[in-house]
Amino acid sequence: MKKNVIVGQSGGPTAVINASLYGVVYEALNREETLGTVYGMINGIEGFLSDQIMDMKPLELSGELELIKTTPGSYLGSCRYKLPENLNDEIYPKLFEKFATYNIGYFFYIGGNDSMDTVSKLSRYASQISSDIHFIGIPKTIDNDLVLTDHTPGFGSAAKYVASTVREITIDASVYDNTKSVTIIEIMGRHAGWLTASSVLARKFEGDNPVLIYLPEVAFDQEAFIEKVKIALETTSNLVVCISEGINDGNGTFICELASDVGVDTFGHKMLTGSGKYLENLVKERLGVKVRSIELNVCQRCSSSMISKMDQKEAIASGAYGVKCALEGETGKMIAFHRTNTNSAGTSTSMDHYQIDYVTEDVNLICNQEKTVPLEWITHDGSDIGPEFLSYAQPLIQGEVTVPTENGIPKFAYRKSLMPL
Amino acid sequence: MKKNVIVGQSGGPTAVINASLYGVVYEALNREETLGTVYGMINGIEGFLSDQIMDMKPLELSGELELIKTTPGSYLGSCRYKLPENLNDEIYPKLFEKFATYNIGYFFYIGGNDSMDTVSKLSRYASQISSDIHFIGIPKTIDNDLVLTDHTPGFGSAAKYVASTVREITIDASVYDNTKSVTIIEIMGRHAGWLTASSVLARKFEGDNPVLIYLPEVAFDQEAFIEKVKIALETTSNLVVCISEGINDGNGTFICELASDVGVDTFGHKMLTGSGKYLENLVKERLGVKVRSIELNVCQRCSSSMISKMDQKEAIASGAYGVKCALEGETGKMIAFHRTNTNSAGTSTSMDHYQIDYVTEDVNLICNQEKTVPLEWITHDGSDIGPEFLSYAQPLIQGEVTVPTENGIPKFAYRKSLMPL
Repeated sequence: MKKNVIVGQSGGPTAVINASLYGVVYEALNREETLGTVYGMINGIEGFLSDQIMDMKPLELSGELELIKTTPGSYLGSCRYKLPENLNDEIYPKLFEKFATYNIGYFFYIGGNDSMDTVSKLSRYASQISSDIHFIGIPKTIDNDLVLTDHTPGFGSAAKYVASTVREITIDASVYDNTKSVTIIEIMGRHAGWLTASSVLARKFEGDNPVLIYLPEVAFDQEAFIEKVKIALETTSNLVVCISEGINDGNGTFICELASDVGVDTFGHKMLTGSGKYLENLVKERLGVKVRSIELNVCQRCSSSMISKMDQKEAIASGAYGVKCALEGETGKMIAFHRTNTNSAGTSTSMDHYQIDYVTEDVNLICNQEKTVPLEWITHDGSDIGPEFLSYAQPLIQGEVTVPTENGIPKFAYRKSLMPL
Repeated sequence: MKKNVIVGQSGGPTAVINASLYGVVYEALNREETLGTVYGMINGIEGFLSDQIMDMKPLELSGELELIKTTPGSYLGSCRYKLPENLNDEIYPKLFEKFATYNIGYFFYIGGNDSMDTVSKLSRYASQISSDIHFIGIPKTIDNDLVLTDHTPGFGSAAKYVASTVREITIDASVYDNTKSVTIIEIMGRHAGWLTASSVLARKFEGDNPVLIYLPEVAFDQEAFIEKVKIALETTSNLVVCISEGINDGNGTFICELASDVGVDTFGHKMLTGSGKYLENLVKERLGVKVRSIELNVCQRCSSSMISKMDQKEAIASGAYGVKCALEGETGKMIAFHRTNTNSAGTSTSMDHYQIDYVTEDVNLICNQEKTVPLEWITHDGSDIGPEFLSYAQPLIQGEVTVPTENGIPKFAYRKSLMPL
């Protein structure tokens, strides 16, 4: 009897998390000789626990599956559900009974570090009870902070959105030449500055905005910052500064904490808000110039207008490759990217020679780790980004994707359970 | 001797203010038999006073003029410079001497209410001294608040951006089905709610988000708001509320003023920030649910990713029509749009029959006026938008524009003076 497939999404969405879903589903549906029903779990492992699943085949027949490729958000819904550390917890047999009920042989989970933690625990428990279910993680995160992979699907589109938007805001900010102004743009990324670093891609010429870029990897010194802003304003009337939401003093205190209260999410992460607002007030008070702060906010992960064609292609391919690997017997693995060309610093970009090999890596070595931007890629006392990053990031934002529209705005796929009856 | 042309831009930019510039310049350059040099004034009338002008012809030859059509910001730079009310002020003869120096016969100013005030004063002074210079205003504003015109170039693209982005944020906000949440989206518009009303275009089906929409035209009652949110959360787990930055208590106090200090800009307008943030805290405190507030910010006026093809077409046409009218002897006029089909409430959209006539209107009747959303288009005790608005707005957001890219991000036109030597 053919085994069935189940796929879920977990954690925050990206612009291409549904492209990865498409990759898994398309590939699995194309292997009907080997595989049974392809299920989607609604709201991740948490929804699966209450039997919220759907058959994905009708989506292919209706054409909805194609639309999923350019739909933001998590088509299947998401969760932030952390499985217990203790593999003797009663939830594990309960989950595996459900796997048996639905005759699941292949389990795919699209997500970031926390989702890989789920894949790790399920595959370890499976090994403990000698289950033959295959557990594969498909990477996604706009933060680009997964280890053992060159980069992560979702990052390229977010980086393209950040670079484009920073360029547009820079142009908008420069219309009043005769008034000195500072625009502070706050970009997502708590501990890893990859996305904030992408703002350097907006720079058109040497000295162009964003003139100053601050990542969480380097301790943020308020006095040094004010000094840098003062000097930059001498040559750039309308200064644009990009900061990560997670800039901190190097001793564990986020800059935004200096101004506001913070909460903690289910995974114990600090919930941040307002580093940009804090610095806006600081600059206003200290330098007396016109200041505006802008949070790029969730648009960084949900804008369909800046999907990178390369990112979409890789997201689909990593989903499809996951199915292939599972069928070849792999389990407890995450799909990873190895860049086969090496970037030598000094070349302007490596776009011509960019090539990715899809591989699998041990999910246990990936979950709960964070890959940060190499310190040697951060320049000018932590206020700028070097050429190595440009070579690294430029191939990832290449190519545009046409999003279907209806009545003048993007047309997206909607899960039936979200629609009225 | 042929008279020269000068064109300037003033006030805040829109996604198509440069399309109007293109319209003026393209049309003027095509009338070489009648017109002399076509100048652009850098940073509006303020820059012109210090002789900051440029010859626009080379842009046509270099191909840069085509690129201007899809470039956000004000290509020529902008100003917020209010001419004195007293036409006997010494600045007027000074300006007209400069017009004489540059042999200006035709003056075009692309802007909103405040810019039309400039056109009004210059044309009245011209009449007073029997000058034969023609002064024409070309409308632009994302706020859509100019009177005597069906709508204003810049509004359609901003509305398309708002509608698309609200739809994307709604999808993003709905991924965690099992947690009740409120997302408050703050949209630009101090006194006129046109742009906030456009968020209704994001609604895909009856009951879809944004469920609640609040404009500045109706007094905002905090208790009634909390009650509406509470009721809406019973049927919509992940509620999206759209509010105008200018929601107020109906007695002149902006909601954001309840929380924060405000400044005043050169024109005496109150500078606003934070209605969304204020309501975020209010909902959190009163209802104890997860709340996030998002300011769409300047992206509403500078995003090139959501330029409406219809808006761009009309922006270009209004610039070109301005040149035609000036050559026919008109002065002290603004180009306006008359919609020749009438919207009857109840028809779903009027897109099939949408047609615009370009006309001229007396600029003196337009400047310093504000057109707000008709109260009868606002429904449900001021918390929703009726079908009349849909019929009105839908034609304005139709069609997509392809923006040229370089290295994966949009390629924009840059004025030489902003580039390094």
